[in-house]
Amino acid sequence: MELKIKISNWSAGLPVVMLNEKTAKELGVHAGDRISIKTISKKPREMVTILDTTEKIVNKRELGVSVEIKKRLSLREGQKIDISLSSNPMSVNYIKKKLLGKVLIEAEIKEIIQDVVNNKLSEPEIAVFISAMYKNGMNFLETVSLIDAILYSGKKLTFKNKLVVDKHCIGGIAGNRTTPIIVTICAAGGLIFPKTSSRAITSAAGTADCIEVLAPVEFSMEQLKKIVKKTNGCLTWGGSLGMVPADSKILKVEKMLKLDPTAQLLASIMSKKLADGGKYILIDIPYGKKAKVNKNKAIYLKKQFEKLGKHFNVIVKVILTKGNEPIGNGIGPALEILDVIKVLNPKEEGPTDLEKKSLYLSGLIFEMTGKAKKGKGINLAKEILDSGKAFKKFKEIISAQKGKFKGIKLSKIFKIIHSKKSGKIKEIDNKLINELARVAGCPLDKFAGVHIQHHVGDKIKKGDELITIYAESKPRLKSALKFYHEKSPIKL
Amino acid sequence: MELKIKISNWSAGLPVVMLNEKTAKELGVHAGDRISIKTISKKPREMVTILDTTEKIVNKRELGVSVEIKKRLSLREGQKIDISLSSNPMSVNYIKKKLLGKVLIEAEIKEIIQDVVNNKLSEPEIAVFISAMYKNGMNFLETVSLIDAILYSGKKLTFKNKLVVDKHCIGGIAGNRTTPIIVTICAAGGLIFPKTSSRAITSAAGTADCIEVLAPVEFSMEQLKKIVKKTNGCLTWGGSLGMVPADSKILKVEKMLKLDPTAQLLASIMSKKLADGGKYILIDIPYGKKAKVNKNKAIYLKKQFEKLGKHFNVIVKVILTKGNEPIGNGIGPALEILDVIKVLNPKEEGPTDLEKKSLYLSGLIFEMTGKAKKGKGINLAKEILDSGKAFKKFKEIISAQKGKFKGIKLSKIFKIIHSKKSGKIKEIDNKLINELARVAGCPLDKFAGVHIQHHVGDKIKKGDELITIYAESKPRLKSALKFYHEKSPIKL
Repeated sequence: MELKIKISNWSAGLPVVMLNEKTAKELGVHAGDRISIKTISKKPREMVTILDTTEKIVNKRELGVSVEIKKRLSLREGQKIDISLSSNPMSVNYIKKKLLGKVLIEAEIKEIIQDVVNNKLSEPEIAVFISAMYKNGMNFLETVSLIDAILYSGKKLTFKNKLVVDKHCIGGIAGNRTTPIIVTICAAGGLIFPKTSSRAITSAAGTADCIEVLAPVEFSMEQLKKIVKKTNGCLTWGGSLGMVPADSKILKVEKMLKLDPTAQLLASIMSKKLADGGKYILIDIPYGKKAKVNKNKAIYLKKQFEKLGKHFNVIVKVILTKGNEPIGNGIGPALEILDVIKVLNPKEEGPTDLEKKSLYLSGLIFEMTGKAKKGKGINLAKEILDSGKAFKKFKEIISAQKGKFKGIKLSKIFKIIHSKKSGKIKEIDNKLINELARVAGCPLDKFAGVHIQHHVGDKIKKGDELITIYAESKPRLKSALKFYHEKSPIKL
Repeated sequence: MELKIKISNWSAGLPVVMLNEKTAKELGVHAGDRISIKTISKKPREMVTILDTTEKIVNKRELGVSVEIKKRLSLREGQKIDISLSSNPMSVNYIKKKLLGKVLIEAEIKEIIQDVVNNKLSEPEIAVFISAMYKNGMNFLETVSLIDAILYSGKKLTFKNKLVVDKHCIGGIAGNRTTPIIVTICAAGGLIFPKTSSRAITSAAGTADCIEVLAPVEFSMEQLKKIVKKTNGCLTWGGSLGMVPADSKILKVEKMLKLDPTAQLLASIMSKKLADGGKYILIDIPYGKKAKVNKNKAIYLKKQFEKLGKHFNVIVKVILTKGNEPIGNGIGPALEILDVIKVLNPKEEGPTDLEKKSLYLSGLIFEMTGKAKKGKGINLAKEILDSGKAFKKFKEIISAQKGKFKGIKLSKIFKIIHSKKSGKIKEIDNKLINELARVAGCPLDKFAGVHIQHHVGDKIKKGDELITIYAESKPRLKSALKFYHEKSPIKL
C-alpha cells in the first residue's frame, strides 16, 4: 500500500516508524512487526525496521518516520512510499547458536552484521549477540570473519602514499590523551596520519570529544582526504564517515550494557584501522590493576593483534604500557585538550608523563616506518616537538578542520578539594576517576571533568589541593562531590 | 527541579519520558540517563526510567510522558513533578555475574526482579539476563529464589475453600485448547477453578486470546473473586491482575528474542500457579519431535515441577502427553473457541482428540482432589460433559465475565487448499502450523488462523480439502499462502 511520509521531530536515537492503528489494521500489520519501507522510484531505496502504532500522532494512510529514517532514505514530507511485511531474519538463529557456545561460520557472521546495519535486528537482539560473544568468546577464524563483515558493511579510505600510519590505544587510562600529540609529531615528520577516533564509550572523553572543543570532527570521506592532503594528518571522528556502521551500532548497545566482549574489541579496532587505510599500525595496551585489562589479558590481546596483522597483511606493533594511574592532569574533553596544548607549545610546560609517553610512541612509529633507526625514533620525535613544528602542525590541522585555535575557558562551576591529612599518595584509581568525571557530566558536557594536582608517590601536606571537580550544572557538581566522598578515588 | 507534565499520545509499549534539550542541559541530564520521577504530594509516587530528549515536541520545563507512565503514576496534564538523576543499579552487575556462569544468591535475584518491575532495567539489559539464564541455566535454589522474587513483586489470590485447583500446559501444540473445557467440567463438578491464562507468546493463540472472542478477560482481583464466587471458575487473562508483573516484563522481551530459558519457564509457571492460590496443580507437558520439548526435557521438567511443588507445599501432578501433531481442527483464537464450543455442546460433534484429552485431564483433577476414586475420574468428567452441565457452566462463566455467548462468524478472507495428490498424511508439523497461523495474523487478528481438515494417518484423495487459511486482510492472506507453499507443513 502506498503511504504518505510524515516526518516526526522525535529523535529517538533509533529509526522509528509509526502507523495509525486503523491503517495498520487495514494493512494487517501490528506494532512490533518487522516491516520493509521502500521509496517509489526507478532505483528504490529500502530499509527494514520495527513498526510502532499510534491512535493520534499520525493520520490514516500516513507513515510517521523519525529523523534518523528521514536521513537514511532521504525522505521529504508528503512523499509517497510503499511498505510491506518482512519475515524474521535467519540471523536471529545464528545469534542463538552462538549463545549456546557453538562456532559460527563466515556466512552466518556476515548475515548477523548485515542485519545489524540494515536495522533488521532490534537492540535487545543485538544485546543477545553481545552476551553470546561475551560469554563464549570467538575463535581466530570467527574474529577474522567479524572483521571482514564489519569492513564489508562500510566504506574504506585509501591512500597512494605507502607511509600511512595509524595508532590505537585500547583505553581505560584517565587523561591518556597522547593521540593529538603523536599525530602532529608524525605528520610534521613526513608521515601520513589519517586519524579517525571514537567518542567516549565508557570513559570520560574520547579523542574526538577532546578535539571537538576546538574544531569540528565530523567530515565526509572526501573532506577528510582533502584535510590529509593539505596537512598530512587529521583528528576526526570515525563515526560520521560511514566506515564501520555495524561497529557503531554494536558499540551503542555495548555501552548501554557495559559489556565489552574481547572478539568485538579486536574486531572493532582492527576493522577501524583497516578502514582507515593504515599500513603501519601501533597499538598501545595499558595494563594494570585499575586499567581496562590486566597483564595476562594484555599479552593475549597483543598476540591476537599481531596474528590479525599478519592475516590482513599490515605491519602491526603492539606495546604494553603500565596503566596504574591517570596520565596528565586533566580528565574530561576541555581539560585534556588543555594538557595537550601545554605539551605541544614549546613555551609552556605540559604534564611530563603525557609528554614522555607521546614521544615514546611517536618514536616507535618513526622506527616502524624506517624514518628513524632503531632506538633513534624518540630523538627525532623530541626534536620535532621542541622545535615547535608539532605545535604548528596541530594548529594547521585544527584550521584545516575549520576550527579556531583559541584559549580554553573552564567552567565556573567547580569545587577544589583539599587533603584532610598529610602523607604520600598511594593510589589514584583510574576507574573511579573516570566515573567521577562522568558523574560530573563528561563526555557530553565538554567543560566538565576533574583536574588532578598530583601523581602516585607525591608527598602532600594537610590542606594541599588534591583535585578540582568541574561541572556545567550545579546538580551534576553535587552528584560528583557525593560520588567523590563516597568512593575516595585518591588514597593516601 | 519541578517540571510540568505533558502527556504524549505516543504509545511505545514502553514507559518513555522526554525533556526539551535545553531543560536537559539546565538540569545536567542526558538522553540515556536513568532518572527518577516523583510526584509532589504527601505520599509521592515514584518510578525510575530512561530519559529521551527532543528539540521540539516538549517545551522547556515540561516533562513529556508516554501513556504507560501516565497510567503507572496516575498523572494528569500540567501536573507538577520532580525529577532527579538515578545511579546504575547493582542488578546490572548480578546479571553480568550470571552471564559468566556464576550462581546467584537469593538477594541478588530479588534485586534483579525488583529492578525489572520498577523499570530500572532497560529491555537490552533484560535481554542479557534472559541470555544468561538461557546459556547457563539456574540451579534449584536459584529457581526457588526466582519464583519467590516474582511472587514477591506482585499480588496473590487466596481462597478459603480447600479444593482450589489449577492446570497448566506448557504449550507448543497447535490448537490444543483444552483449558476452557477442563475448567467448566471441573467447576460444574464442584471444584474451585480460578483460571488465569496468558496470551500467546510464541503460539498462534493463548487461552486468553480465545476467550476474548466471546467475553472480556481483563479483571481486577476483586472482580475475579466475584466471578469465581458466582460460578466456581473463571477464564481470565493473568496479565491484568498485577500478580506477577516481573514475569510479564521478562516474557515480553523473551517474546522479542524467541528465547525461552528453562529456569524462567519453571519460575513463570510456578509463580503464576502459586499466585492463583491453587492447592492442586496439574501440569501437562506435551513432548515430541515438533513439540516445544523432547521427551528428555519433558522428564527433566516433570522432576523439577514435582520438586518445586514439595518445596512450596502444594500438590503437583505432572503428565507427559504425546504432542506430535495439532489437536482439534482450528488454530487461531476464533477457530479454536469454535472447536471448544463443539466439544462442550452435547448437540454438536467436536474434534474427538480435543474431547478425549480434555476428559482425561479433567478426570485426573477429580482424582487428585478426591472427588473421584483412582481410575474413575474420567467417567465423572464424561458424565458432566455429556449431560450438558459443562456447557451450561461455560455459558455461566462467559456471562459472569460480561460476555455474550453467540455464534462465531469466521473471516470472509480465506483460501481453501486442496491436495495435489492422493496418499496418507505422514506429518502435520506443529511448529510450522503455528507459524503459518501467526503469519496469517494470529494472535492479534482473532478471526485469522487455519482450519485443518485431517489428522496424521488419514487417507486422502487428490483434490480433497487439506487446510483452509483465514486472514483479516489480503496482504496477510498472501503472506500466509506464500509461507504455506514454501514450507509445506502437511506432508503426504
